Amino acid sequence: MAVLLYDNAFSGNCYKVRLLLTLLGIEFERREVSVVEYGERLATLRGLSPTLNIPAVVLDDGRPLAESNAILWYFAERSRYLSEDPYERGQVLQWMFFEQYKHEPGIAVPRFWDAIAPERFPRPDDLKVRRASGRDALKVMERHLREHAYFVGERFTIADIALYAYTHVAPEAGLDLEPLPAVRAWLGRVAAEPGLIAIED
Amino acid sequence: MAVLLYDNAFSGNCYKVRLLLTLLGIEFERREVSVVEYGERLATLRGLSPTLNIPAVVLDDGRPLAESNAILWYFAERSRYLSEDPYERGQVLQWMFFEQYKHEPGIAVPRFWDAIAPERFPRPDDLKVRRASGRDALKVMERHLREHAYFVGERFTIADIALYAYTHVAPEAGLDLEPLPAVRAWLGRVAAEPGLIAIED
Repeated sequence: MAVLLYDNAFSGNCYKVRLLLTLLGIEFERREVSVVEYGERLATLRGLSPTLNIPAVVLDDGRPLAESNAILWYFAERSRYLSEDPYERGQVLQWMFFEQYKHEPGIAVPRFWDAIAPERFPRPDDLKVRRASGRDALKVMERHLREHAYFVGERFTIADIALYAYTHVAPEAGLDLEPLPAVRAWLGRVAAEPGLIAIED
Repeated sequence: MAVLLYDNAFSGNCYKVRLLLTLLGIEFERREVSVVEYGERLATLRGLSPTLNIPAVVLDDGRPLAESNAILWYFAERSRYLSEDPYERGQVLQWMFFEQYKHEPGIAVPRFWDAIAPERFPRPDDLKVRRASGRDALKVMERHLREHAYFVGERFTIADIALYAYTHVAPEAGLDLEPLPAVRAWLGRVAAEPGLIAIED
C-alpha cells in the first residue's frame, strides 16, 4: 500500500510533503481536496486530520497523520534531511514553528485571498495586516541568511523545505523579494537541490 | 552553568518551559523580560531568538534555542514525556503544530489584550475574530478528548504540556470551558500530574 496524500495543487503546505516524499523516493498517491469547498472536508478528512485540514497522509499501515511540518518530521527521520544531533534537531523545530506561527499566516493567507478567493477577505484591512506580518517574517529570514547558507547546520534540511514552500511564491501574496538578496540567494540554492520538484509538478 | 530562561511570569509559552524543566529536575535561572516593552527586546534577545520573542533559553553549553515547543522537544528527548515510537512522535508534533497555528493565536492573544494591554487592540473586531478561532480550537480538543485520556499514546506527554498552558487560562481570554466537559476532565488529569507547578509559581 502506497502512502496516501490528501493534497491540493495550489497549497504550499501540501507542496512541502510532495517535495520531501519525492526526494526520499517514497511512492505516494495524491487525492485532491478543494481549498475552497469546506463542505466536503468533513466527509473526506474526518478521522484523518483533527482540524479537517490538508495536507493529511495515511501511512502504508493505514494510520493517519496531519500538519505539514509534523509529516515532514515523520518521514525525514533517519534521512539526510534531518540531523541526528539533538541541538540541530531543536533548531530545525525552532524554524518550523516560526514558519507556522509567523511566516505561513503572513504569506499563505494573503496569497490565498489574492489568487483564489478574494471574496473571502473578512475585513478590508486584513490583507494589509497579514502582508506586514509576512514582510516581518521575511526580514527575520534575511537576517539569518546573511550569515548562513541554510537554516540549520549549513546544509539543506526539512527546515529549508518548510520555509521554501511559501517563500518562493511570496510575490503571489504581493510581497516583494527584491530587497532581500540573502533570501533570493537561498531560494536559488534550494531550487538547485538535486531532485527538487516544482509546486506545479 | 544552569540553563538560562528568558521568561515572563504571565506568558503561557514561557510557563510550558518552566513546567517541563521542573518536571525533569533541570535547574534553570529565570530572566524576566517584559511582554509590553518591545524596545528592550532587541538588546536582550538579539542572537538568542530570531524573532526576538520569549521564551528563549541559553543551554548549559552557552548555545541559544527559541520557540516554546522546540524547547520542549529538545529537553523532553529520551525522557518519559516524549515517546520513542516514530508514529507517536509524529502525533506529538501534529498537536504541537496545531497548538501554535490555531490554538495559541485564538487564546493567548485575546488573553493578552484583555488582561495586559487592552489599548493594543488593533481594530475593534479583532477580539471577536480571535476568540471565535480560540473556540474552534477548543472544540477540536473536545472531540479528541471524548475518546482519549491524553493527546498521544494515552499518557501525559509534551503535547499535553503545550496545550495545557493556554487552555487552563482560557477563561482569562473570555472563553468559557463550561460546555467542554472532556477538556475540563483532561485539565483535571494534567493538574494532578506529580510535580506539576502552577503558572504563577
